[in-house]
Amino acid sequence: MIYLDNAATTRPSDGALARAAHYLTECYYNPSALYHGGAEAARLIRDARGFLLEQIADPALFSLIFTSCGTESDNQAIFSAARRGNAVTTMGEHSAVFESYKELKNRGVETRFAPLNKDASVDVDALLSLVDEKTSLVSVIHVSNETGAVNDIADIARRVKQKNPRAVFMSDGVQAYGKLAFRLTKDIDLYSVSAHKIGALKGTGALLRRKGYSALSAYLHGGGQENGLRSGTENVYGIACFYYAAQEKFASLEKDAARIAAMREQLWSLLDKQLFVRISPEGGSPYILTVSAPGKRGETLQRMLWDLGVAVGTGSACNSKKPHSRVLEACGYDGKILDGVVRVSFCPSNTMEEVQAAARAMNEAARAFGG
Amino acid sequence: MIYLDNAATTRPSDGALARAAHYLTECYYNPSALYHGGAEAARLIRDARGFLLEQIADPALFSLIFTSCGTESDNQAIFSAARRGNAVTTMGEHSAVFESYKELKNRGVETRFAPLNKDASVDVDALLSLVDEKTSLVSVIHVSNETGAVNDIADIARRVKQKNPRAVFMSDGVQAYGKLAFRLTKDIDLYSVSAHKIGALKGTGALLRRKGYSALSAYLHGGGQENGLRSGTENVYGIACFYYAAQEKFASLEKDAARIAAMREQLWSLLDKQLFVRISPEGGSPYILTVSAPGKRGETLQRMLWDLGVAVGTGSACNSKKPHSRVLEACGYDGKILDGVVRVSFCPSNTMEEVQAAARAMNEAARAFGG
Repeated sequence: MIYLDNAATTRPSDGALARAAHYLTECYYNPSALYHGGAEAARLIRDARGFLLEQIADPALFSLIFTSCGTESDNQAIFSAARRGNAVTTMGEHSAVFESYKELKNRGVETRFAPLNKDASVDVDALLSLVDEKTSLVSVIHVSNETGAVNDIADIARRVKQKNPRAVFMSDGVQAYGKLAFRLTKDIDLYSVSAHKIGALKGTGALLRRKGYSALSAYLHGGGQENGLRSGTENVYGIACFYYAAQEKFASLEKDAARIAAMREQLWSLLDKQLFVRISPEGGSPYILTVSAPGKRGETLQRMLWDLGVAVGTGSACNSKKPHSRVLEACGYDGKILDGVVRVSFCPSNTMEEVQAAARAMNEAARAFGG
Repeated sequence: MIYLDNAATTRPSDGALARAAHYLTECYYNPSALYHGGAEAARLIRDARGFLLEQIADPALFSLIFTSCGTESDNQAIFSAARRGNAVTTMGEHSAVFESYKELKNRGVETRFAPLNKDASVDVDALLSLVDEKTSLVSVIHVSNETGAVNDIADIARRVKQKNPRAVFMSDGVQAYGKLAFRLTKDIDLYSVSAHKIGALKGTGALLRRKGYSALSAYLHGGGQENGLRSGTENVYGIACFYYAAQEKFASLEKDAARIAAMREQLWSLLDKQLFVRISPEGGSPYILTVSAPGKRGETLQRMLWDLGVAVGTGSACNSKKPHSRVLEACGYDGKILDGVVRVSFCPSNTMEEVQAAARAMNEAARAFGG
């Protein structure tokens, strides 16, 4: 199987699993236990926390708590920060942010959604026009999970704070962390990341917080783990896998990005332009190439490709009532293009040979479709 | 290392890990993916859900959602059910319930705590006297994590509903599930369980819900997983480990309980009664034997025992301001007994030889203490 659905989830890294195995069957102790084994598990968490934080932020200015997933990080951030007035976001958010904003409405917070550019990046001027003195939260996805478009969150955050210094700025960084070179700036208050998108396990995420931002509230109450902000026995093995997978990713981040950008452009160059149009921008994350075979069904193409040995994603909402991607619809694409969306997403272990085989399979599937 | 701190966490079962490995490195797909691999991951979740549910409940009357831990299950249950009036619980709850009740106070819900019997089971008449027509939630731990005392939750729930049929009844079953033979009754609305207490992994839990109880609200908003009640990519590997570990536990549950009860009584019979007093009741869960070496420090004994090759728990709150167990304090023990608490907790892979060695080490450590 040629696996090109890495934006959905990744195969865990063999190297990370091998190193983390110690915390599965040997140092399996509860990190709260006061004996040596518990302290060793607690030390792993401390080391992982430090490493994962310092890759993208100054540890003097930011801290990190572990959560169970990117969705939890987003939920904790949003419901802590937006308790009054209005909350601003974009039409291009992951559902973990988008659905949380819909819930904010039920809790009496006005929600405002900024329109998108054609590549699913946010229209920054339109976003800023929604920010006023009553804005408690602004949330902007860092890298679109649907197209790979990159929002310049440092610049957006700076301009948001110029307009309202009291507004909290957060970003869902799930598709950016471990893939893009960047540093959190002082205008970014909260930042969500996930382990299973970079070769670690489902069930582990983290939330980074600017230390000057003190209003983050506990999402789970109990034993007081994670400095009281996230109770529950820590997922030590998941955290170990996250740590070791991130070590691999950050060690070769820029080299991987260049190689993957070349694979992405090779894939695009090999696709039959009579069959496919491109949705992903050239300047976006190299890890995602979203295309469409207009008039064909992305989900059907996806199943045909699976039978040809290639796993890809779609732009579908997986919902019979709303057959199209909410985000790509907001980009203004017509129904024929929305129907045929296929998302190809890479990881560093993909090869050029796989990409060439995938291009042949995509052309074959689209040609065979309905004809 | 003789590991006798299984109420804190357990070593993952080699058998469960071996069977679950398929979902770590082969079927690592996102269960939301519509291709065959995603469907296979989704099927595993469905099968695990069915098995884990039917071990303790009638699937016609109850459903089960996966969560990230027992603490999350408790939090979701409590904050869904207790939105008004008063909420009743016991002084013997795990901190996941106890601290959530403290948070309820901040949210305008009156909280009422029922006193305990000497073994940490709840004083049922006192609990019932706290229930009135304004009670929205009653929460009673099934098996005390501090002593192993068992509350008869079926009987308590029945009597609660007699007094107020609209009150929601929930129970934290983390120390009962996979260890005690019981079935959920129609008076129990919500029941929390955890994977890592029965040979599976930290980072997985579940919440069982009576189908007639419809007020459970989503705790995480996003992709709509778990029937919209718990968004976030499912922890497929964790769920697989939970499933296979539970298969092992339930297959030999009553045989294991009898064997472990014999080990517990053997341990108690070998302890020097000049040094130790017993706190755990004879009729409680066989998996926990809590004792005290009055006037000695449980944490120090714990560290000494680690050096002697035995891992045990304490009754300590791990808190310099509150050196004693909140629960055992509520049982009415004096400071000398509270100081010296040691909790020994078993799993089916423990042996009688380990128990005999542990008893020798405990006597040795208590004799050596300070003298």
